[in-house]
Amino acid sequence: MGVTLPRKELFDIPEGVIYLDGNSLGVLPKGAAERATRVIREEWGQQLIRAWNTAGWMALPQDLGDTLAGLLGAPAGSVATGDTLSIKVYQALAAALKMRPDRRVILSDNGNFPSDLYMAEGLIGTIDKGYELRTPAPEDVMEAITEEVAVVMLTQVDYRSGRMHDMAAITQRAHDMGAVMIWDLAHSAGAVPVDLTASNAEFAVGCTYKYLNGGPGAPAFIYVRPDLATKVQPALSGWLGHDAPFAMERNYRPAMSTERMRVGTPAILQLSVLQEALKVWEGVDMADLRAASMRLCDLFIKEVEARCPRLELASPRDAALRGSQVSFGFEHGYAAMQALIDRGVIGDFRAPNIMRFGFTPLYIDEGDVIAAAKIIEDVITQELWRDPKYQTVSRVT
Amino acid sequence: MGVTLPRKELFDIPEGVIYLDGNSLGVLPKGAAERATRVIREEWGQQLIRAWNTAGWMALPQDLGDTLAGLLGAPAGSVATGDTLSIKVYQALAAALKMRPDRRVILSDNGNFPSDLYMAEGLIGTIDKGYELRTPAPEDVMEAITEEVAVVMLTQVDYRSGRMHDMAAITQRAHDMGAVMIWDLAHSAGAVPVDLTASNAEFAVGCTYKYLNGGPGAPAFIYVRPDLATKVQPALSGWLGHDAPFAMERNYRPAMSTERMRVGTPAILQLSVLQEALKVWEGVDMADLRAASMRLCDLFIKEVEARCPRLELASPRDAALRGSQVSFGFEHGYAAMQALIDRGVIGDFRAPNIMRFGFTPLYIDEGDVIAAAKIIEDVITQELWRDPKYQTVSRVT
Repeated sequence: MGVTLPRKELFDIPEGVIYLDGNSLGVLPKGAAERATRVIREEWGQQLIRAWNTAGWMALPQDLGDTLAGLLGAPAGSVATGDTLSIKVYQALAAALKMRPDRRVILSDNGNFPSDLYMAEGLIGTIDKGYELRTPAPEDVMEAITEEVAVVMLTQVDYRSGRMHDMAAITQRAHDMGAVMIWDLAHSAGAVPVDLTASNAEFAVGCTYKYLNGGPGAPAFIYVRPDLATKVQPALSGWLGHDAPFAMERNYRPAMSTERMRVGTPAILQLSVLQEALKVWEGVDMADLRAASMRLCDLFIKEVEARCPRLELASPRDAALRGSQVSFGFEHGYAAMQALIDRGVIGDFRAPNIMRFGFTPLYIDEGDVIAAAKIIEDVITQELWRDPKYQTVSRVT
Repeated sequence: MGVTLPRKELFDIPEGVIYLDGNSLGVLPKGAAERATRVIREEWGQQLIRAWNTAGWMALPQDLGDTLAGLLGAPAGSVATGDTLSIKVYQALAAALKMRPDRRVILSDNGNFPSDLYMAEGLIGTIDKGYELRTPAPEDVMEAITEEVAVVMLTQVDYRSGRMHDMAAITQRAHDMGAVMIWDLAHSAGAVPVDLTASNAEFAVGCTYKYLNGGPGAPAFIYVRPDLATKVQPALSGWLGHDAPFAMERNYRPAMSTERMRVGTPAILQLSVLQEALKVWEGVDMADLRAASMRLCDLFIKEVEARCPRLELASPRDAALRGSQVSFGFEHGYAAMQALIDRGVIGDFRAPNIMRFGFTPLYIDEGDVIAAAKIIEDVITQELWRDPKYQTVSRVT
């Protein structure tokens, strides 16, 4: 048994806000601001260059990798941190393609987050040897995994619908067909239990600013299956992935560990804040988290459907097939989301018509769900979204 | 005429420290900690996801690019920010190679910062079409630029010796031979006047944690010559380089500007602190800065050589050929630098035997130079570096 959820007391959440957008940018963990101040004033300001040693900056990326590994069912030493998720996608894909030099097909799905597909396009253009990116519908992925496929690259939880791929089954199928498996865990890490070791996947990547509350632009991560850590060929072979970065050798010689997936000088400020943010996970049992998440999402669907027949569920109804978010399709979704935000219920909108609500059991409870559903009812049934001020598209994210 | 230098009052520098390592990690500008606190508590904490619009996070990378452009003799809109310098090297090199598809030679020099060479190796291995990385001695670069060369990729100011390449002459030679030019400005930006427009180089890259005082892990930048901004092919084609990131289109369609060189979600905390740090440059005349830098370095050489005959100058004696640092070769350089740091004179050591001292006229004056020279004299002539506590190599950076 883990600690009792929610743990609202560990976060600074604004008064009057029901935050259902932790799947886009998590809330502020208490302690993050103090940590940043300490890093800036004491470490950078006072210790200056010495802080790489005296304040533990050099060890920070690996320390964080080990903490993340613990949350992802992976052994210590198997996760490297830094850069952005897009960069980590590129690294995983480039390394994976080198492992199947005789094949030319990258398989993803058409619901994957666009940046993953864009990075694949960029890599294909860079290599320029006739690689093909195939993107069938998510439900057709299993049968599309054939012996032509070099790499299967999928996001486990769909960013729009929350639909969850079966990690174990798809990885097994990929391996049966001789393909390498890459999982993007952007909407999984901190949201659903992940067992990377059991999955047997070669690579996984993810970000830390969503359910892991690392803050805007928090560093990304990459997992490499331990048997491959000293074998994969890094495409982005930066000095901090070198076996001896400060020996200033003329030739690249990769670290004999997953650290070879590091690239340049680490973003110490963001990494430090992330380290502070991850403290909220101490004692959390991921099975408890999952149970709470399913309860919250099921309750939300029931309440919203009862109150708002015009909204169409765009997520799987079966909680077992869903991550920790619920989406509804609504023709006026953009304006409706603005109206909701104006009333303190913060979710987000994803083109073309998706109103998206994330449920984060660390700081959301059933009272929040009921309160949010009532406000959604007001906005939809009273058509409050018709107010002209909600019509202007001026947003991002 | 610009503001009077130095401007020590704009920085928090520890008591008793003479900091001659601003070429590795710049000191803390006042205001940086307050800015970070505001970003965390008010923007992230209170505005949450809305801060991408309400706090200007979306515009921040481009705003910063424009500020940096102003410091580099480049027009607004020509500089994109984010990621690390190693990543930006890869982007520039990959784009440059696409511009000369019929050539297979990348020319750098053997004094270039290792990570630049490592990234080139990684790209060569990824493309795997017989590219060759040539690294002659820096003084042999000019004649090595032949019609075989696709791309010339050099760091203007040598990280060990401070020796400065002639940007205009080398770029001209590269263009005469039909090659594309990439300049790494890691030790130039904020250290010497740079006129990217006049240089006519296609690409430049750099980091902001050295002379620009952006803090540990501050974001990097990339310059693309304006006529190429809408033509270059991004290898790292992430969603924030897309023309419409939030349209979530299936295919990558690059932004019609230098912003196509952006990749993933920006590191808002680091970018914000950098923006604060760049305020110290308001009113600084780069010609004044250069004159002060040359004065400080000349004085340092004179004082150290007079006091310490055992140290051998490893930088050009002619200030016109030198960046804003002075290096001395000394067999026991590692231990001697530890002894100096122990006495408040902070420089750094670079293998195999280089004691490196950076001079940053924003916060170093002639009194600092004399005081540092006296302490160096004590350490060297009294052989204080022989103390066993300085012999153990336990460092980084």
